[in-house]
Amino acid sequence: MSASMSDIVAQVLAGERSAVARLISRVENEKDDYRIILDKLHTHTGKGYRIGVTGAPGSGKSTLTNQLAKIIRKHGSRIGIVAVDPTSPFTGGAVLGDRLRMNDLTLDEGVFIRSMATRGSLGGLAAKATEVADILDAAGYDFIIYETVGVGQVELDIVEAADTTIVLIVPEGGDIIQGMKAGLMEIGDIFVLNKYDRPGSERMQKDLEYVLHLKEAASGWHPEVLPAVANRNQGITEIWEKIAIHKKFLTENKLLAKKRANRLKTRLEFLVRTGMEAAFWDAKRKSKLQEYLKSQAENVSPYKVAQNLLDELLTQIKK
Amino acid sequence: MSASMSDIVAQVLAGERSAVARLISRVENEKDDYRIILDKLHTHTGKGYRIGVTGAPGSGKSTLTNQLAKIIRKHGSRIGIVAVDPTSPFTGGAVLGDRLRMNDLTLDEGVFIRSMATRGSLGGLAAKATEVADILDAAGYDFIIYETVGVGQVELDIVEAADTTIVLIVPEGGDIIQGMKAGLMEIGDIFVLNKYDRPGSERMQKDLEYVLHLKEAASGWHPEVLPAVANRNQGITEIWEKIAIHKKFLTENKLLAKKRANRLKTRLEFLVRTGMEAAFWDAKRKSKLQEYLKSQAENVSPYKVAQNLLDELLTQIKK
Repeated sequence: MSASMSDIVAQVLAGERSAVARLISRVENEKDDYRIILDKLHTHTGKGYRIGVTGAPGSGKSTLTNQLAKIIRKHGSRIGIVAVDPTSPFTGGAVLGDRLRMNDLTLDEGVFIRSMATRGSLGGLAAKATEVADILDAAGYDFIIYETVGVGQVELDIVEAADTTIVLIVPEGGDIIQGMKAGLMEIGDIFVLNKYDRPGSERMQKDLEYVLHLKEAASGWHPEVLPAVANRNQGITEIWEKIAIHKKFLTENKLLAKKRANRLKTRLEFLVRTGMEAAFWDAKRKSKLQEYLKSQAENVSPYKVAQNLLDELLTQIKK
Repeated sequence: MSASMSDIVAQVLAGERSAVARLISRVENEKDDYRIILDKLHTHTGKGYRIGVTGAPGSGKSTLTNQLAKIIRKHGSRIGIVAVDPTSPFTGGAVLGDRLRMNDLTLDEGVFIRSMATRGSLGGLAAKATEVADILDAAGYDFIIYETVGVGQVELDIVEAADTTIVLIVPEGGDIIQGMKAGLMEIGDIFVLNKYDRPGSERMQKDLEYVLHLKEAASGWHPEVLPAVANRNQGITEIWEKIAIHKKFLTENKLLAKKRANRLKTRLEFLVRTGMEAAFWDAKRKSKLQEYLKSQAENVSPYKVAQNLLDELLTQIKK
């Protein structure tokens, strides 16, 4: 490891904001053997508690994250926020506006906010989000919140990798059904019925509790529905207390260690997969791929081409 | 290839519904060398035109898909619908209810509807969706519609792999902003402002047109905003005509062949990746992984372990 890399490791471990920010950019851009640095940071991870916040667009995820961050700061803990934002420069304005709401937090040295805009990244958004959380963990942030924008497959993977996952629902016709369809009922450890000042909230709470009641809780944890009006700071303390209860539950039942082992397994498989791929697609094989794509008219099956390429590789391995 | 596999290929090419359904199940469950069958079908693909339909939950995707299917049938073409639904048995009821809306179509021999519930699949949802579309394509369906439930990263990947992508927006406060945040503005070839009978629709159309105007159209195609009230069958003909115009544009500019080449590239890379992974994780390496996860207390970095495993492999390859 070069001297400059050792410097970065030391600076990140000392919690220097600018070093953390630069390293995250390096990870996002997959630059300069950033994995060597992450490797060195690894032994310093494991202390940060990871919270996932998800829900349909407009359900108040940013607002809740903001309020939770304020409570966490009141208790003297440091917090890192990873907002997973598949945004391009073209749409940057909208998200920036959203982030601006957090202005009172960004001036606070104990808060680190990062929007990840890595759509199209080779490494995959879920893997990158974990890498960023690892950096914040090593830098001494006691809590790390993943906040998603979408509610799709990758976003579910990201929040599921958290220790506690919060799902936001709003009292609107069909929101429970839509939430079920998006797979949200499966992954929540805590459900927050936000915008509880709207009509129909009590009825919705009963419906949601009924639906959750149908779910088998293999872990022994029974998710509850907490009412909140996040933008008026109502119900936030109760959510915060419930997070603490869930954390205690996970720790006492050795489930926290299990979650961590699962994250490590996913990480290791990812590293192997991407490492193999990088080694595989050398100049020779890349040009074979290009030739194949140019010869489309003959309609040769990609299965055949892949098998030929792999057979050649596997013969070498089995020698 | 076994005799029974040849039978399946022949039956699918003849458009036999039950054979198509069984093969799709086989693909979903990754059973019995299904890739051998897909390989045989490949030369018969390329005729089906692929349409992606996406938008926030509740924007009317199922309804629009339903109406488009009816128009397509009126023109005498056959249509396959792939609804990408990350649903579990627990939430199955909700989606079933949604599918029931299509009842008038399911009795029609020229329509094939399939919900894909492959969350957690090893192969990845986007790859599976393409495989299912390939089967429908080979079975002679002239149009294939991908309809997503979520609006996340994987869902964007799926609809982007379509030839024409339709994005639904509804006239609701913040929906344009939420759509931008979810990356929807980037991927639409046609924008449908659904539920146009609601107040504020005209204003919303102007806003949306303005936002789209900001976007650079590298391809030369300028997406338009079409008003619709899908559940009252208003505006559907115009959408259908716009799809035909977009198809013509892609064909004349050789962009359809380019899209197809991109799909093949993604497919080939996927086959190589999963093939290598399957070969890599043999019993010996799996037990190494388990040992590592058990030794967590020592906090050994996954980067180091992955590198050791890969070094061993790459040394063998380079021999």
